[in-house]
Amino acid sequence: MKQNLGPKAAIFPMPVLMIGTYDENGKVDVMNAAWGMECGSNMLALCLTSTHKTSKNLRANKACTVALADLPHMKEADFFGIASGNTMEDKFERTGLTAVKSERVNAPVIEEFPLTMECELVSEVNDESGLHVFVVRVVNTLAEDRILKEDGKVCPHRLNALIFNEFRAKYFVLGEKVGDAWGAGKELL
Amino acid sequence: MKQNLGPKAAIFPMPVLMIGTYDENGKVDVMNAAWGMECGSNMLALCLTSTHKTSKNLRANKACTVALADLPHMKEADFFGIASGNTMEDKFERTGLTAVKSERVNAPVIEEFPLTMECELVSEVNDESGLHVFVVRVVNTLAEDRILKEDGKVCPHRLNALIFNEFRAKYFVLGEKVGDAWGAGKELL
Repeated sequence: MKQNLGPKAAIFPMPVLMIGTYDENGKVDVMNAAWGMECGSNMLALCLTSTHKTSKNLRANKACTVALADLPHMKEADFFGIASGNTMEDKFERTGLTAVKSERVNAPVIEEFPLTMECELVSEVNDESGLHVFVVRVVNTLAEDRILKEDGKVCPHRLNALIFNEFRAKYFVLGEKVGDAWGAGKELL
Repeated sequence: MKQNLGPKAAIFPMPVLMIGTYDENGKVDVMNAAWGMECGSNMLALCLTSTHKTSKNLRANKACTVALADLPHMKEADFFGIASGNTMEDKFERTGLTAVKSERVNAPVIEEFPLTMECELVSEVNDESGLHVFVVRVVNTLAEDRILKEDGKVCPHRLNALIFNEFRAKYFVLGEKVGDAWGAGKELL
């Protein structure tokens, strides 16, 4: 039996993205965003409110980093989502995290996050539907040695990324592997 | 020590979305898509290749359903991602799943999936950046009784949705709860 939950978007799972930018004075800001997706093999679409500090910084510098928040930094990652860079002068400094300038784009790499995409702004799309997204190109992805397996690919359990559950506003971690994509359904082909 | 993985988008986790549509003859198609996100409290952005059967159907009917694939239907969900509705006449029928017409939009609800968003097409956005997305409005979300808790909200473990790991083309399930969103970082405020 199905129940009607009403007109509510209900994507699950969602990522916990850490979007790093500089302001016009080179000050670091990081925000927490769940509304982001891949839209090409090296492209991301980020749905951000236009008035966020991050949105202003993205327009000014044409660049950002997008990192995946991991369990050891849940406190800092969540804080980046509840504090505003528009009103809190020492937002980033309060966390004690470390920022270094990306070698490729004009945006900060937060050292403590295990995986970071270095991105340049391609386009800001405003559609009459109400869609507002920043389209960014990934010029490089940085990954800590410790999250890579012998074949050089990311191990999702070593990554230990947070998973956002919007239904109850909770963070989770990954469970067990259950099957192969482009494999589990082959017997029906 | 950080390694360079090159210009590769690396969002994690990603959902396993089942996009259900009718073709011009009322024939059911379902595709498997990971590139989708919320872009409003009742809005989704779906990044789909323009030539997919689903894209054609969405344009024709201005509607789709978006369900979350769950572990008990991994085989069918994966099959929907490796078979094409453009070339396989009996794609949906092969799975043995059950489609009923949505009461609200001109699209099929696949009975076996535990959560389904009934959506109407708002806009098809093509940007010079290469972004191509369908923006849809969720007019209602259907959820099976068994995935709801006493308060009427979705329990993510009962939902048992698949989680896509693009790094290794694997499906996972959810692990344990680790913290509160808009809560875990409060001590830094």
